[in-house]
Amino acid sequence: MFKTNIQIRVRYADTDQMKMVYYGKYAEYLEVARTEALREIGISYKSLEDSGILLPVYEYSIKFLKPAKYDDLLKIETIIPIKPSVKLVFNYIIFNQLEEKLSEATTTLVFLNSSNNKPTRLPEYLDKLSEFYYK
Amino acid sequence: MFKTNIQIRVRYADTDQMKMVYYGKYAEYLEVARTEALREIGISYKSLEDSGILLPVYEYSIKFLKPAKYDDLLKIETIIPIKPSVKLVFNYIIFNQLEEKLSEATTTLVFLNSSNNKPTRLPEYLDKLSEFYYK
Amino acid sequence: MFKTNIQIRVRYADTDQMKMVYYGKYAEYLEVARTEALREIGISYKSLEDSGILLPVYEYSIKFLKPAKYDDLLKIETIIPIKPSVKLVFNYIIFNQLEEKLSEATTTLVFLNSSNNKPTRLPEYLDKLSEFYYK
Amino acid sequence: MFKTNIQIRVRYADTDQMKMVYYGKYAEYLEVARTEALREIGISYKSLEDSGILLPVYEYSIKFLKPAKYDDLLKIETIIPIKPSVKLVFNYIIFNQLEEKLSEATTTLVFLNSSNNKPTRLPEYLDKLSEFYYK
Repeated sequence: MFKTNIQIRVRYADTDQMKMVYYGKYAEYLEVARTEALREIGISYKSLEDSGILLPVYEYSIKFLKPAKYDDLLKIETIIPIKPSVKLVFNYIIFNQLEEKLSEATTTLVFLNSSNNKPTRLPEYLDKLSEFYYK
Repeated sequence: MFKTNIQIRVRYADTDQMKMVYYGKYAEYLEVARTEALREIGISYKSLEDSGILLPVYEYSIKFLKPAKYDDLLKIETIIPIKPSVKLVFNYIIFNQLEEKLSEATTTLVFLNSSNNKPTRLPEYLDKLSEFYYK
Repeated sequence: MFKTNIQIRVRYADTDQMKMVYYGKYAEYLEVARTEALREIGISYKSLEDSGILLPVYEYSIKFLKPAKYDDLLKIETIIPIKPSVKLVFNYIIFNQLEEKLSEATTTLVFLNSSNNKPTRLPEYLDKLSEFYYK
Repeated sequence: MFKTNIQIRVRYADTDQMKMVYYGKYAEYLEVARTEALREIGISYKSLEDSGILLPVYEYSIKFLKPAKYDDLLKIETIIPIKPSVKLVFNYIIFNQLEEKLSEATTTLVFLNSSNNKPTRLPEYLDKLSEFYYK
């Protein structure tokens, strides 16, 4: 069972005048979470892209249970809930430093061949990704 | 039946190195769309907040069918699909200038009393909102 | 003498918990101002880039006199104060809807040949730019 | 002599279609740099604000020598070059992981009393700040 944890400090830039993190900012936090999850598995998203594979987001949903606040030290738990194929799904749970659950989110990314922007199967050298989905 | 249309020009700031709009930026576009939808009905979100009602986003989901590109002149169609109560739901469809459908999204907002951050029913002076949901 | 005026509505996303626009957001406003200034002259920045010319920002400075607030309808005056050569300078003044001066800013951009990322002279078909600097 | 160093990983969100970091994003990096510089001195910007002192940016300037790229691990050196009074000045130098100097920047912040938004002298309990400027 594979699960990564990363920490992100909330920036002033992330807040809005409701004195909480703007709902649009969480997309960046999740990007960091899945990039670091891949790095932990041994996959650099940068190298992936340099090798001709793009991984754009196809679907994204998020539920906000409690607000994240300025200077919070967020913890994001990330899992891969489904065996990767053409799609790569990540589930996330965001906690604050008090271990309060703030948000739950899911993103579905698609492997694209950057030469023709067509969907492509999980590249062979990413086979190890398949071992890491959360059973 | 109520449906608003707004136009948004994609900024360079909105793009990423995949030469498309970053997935996190759409949240801002949708904010503009629903704010202008409310303004068209005669409701200023700013006045709402000044009067003690907050409207944070509770749930957000989006599906990306085609990418938005730099300098695109996006059109966002917004409807209120459900009679507003404690929650206010907006559905959006984003098109580009070629009338291609790029994205579909939904946001669910919650009316909060800013004095105690508790959910509150649709304020009376917002009753007109109820006439505008999409039947 | 050439001077353009554009209007930008402040988004909720632009605010921070000081209830003013975050200082980093003005860069986007200025991007919109200079892009629309060029469009008014008849130059599409998108076409420029498609033709192999990049215009990255080399220097940027801004002074904040008064804060911009949520839902403000900003007016940005843009001029080209110096005859363009390898560099293209824009000066900006930002006002709110009460005609209060909020900020003054300057950006210096550099013409780059996108094939080798080397600075390049103002392309010939941009000669018209030279007529528009503010004497 | 006081000098802090922080590291920031460039996010995909930070890039634009020139495949470099968008010029507006550096403001966030510098916010992180000065916040962590203050934290290292023993001053929490959050606590400062909770105690009734705001520190908005009054002036900001930046020069871009080389572009920051996706996934770069930036190092930001921060100093306080002038003895703090009503104003608090920070100078920054941004390097990439190859020790190439990418940018130089300065921000001038102003101490404001949040009850009346008037400039205020350096609060007494911040006297220690004065020891940390770079002589």
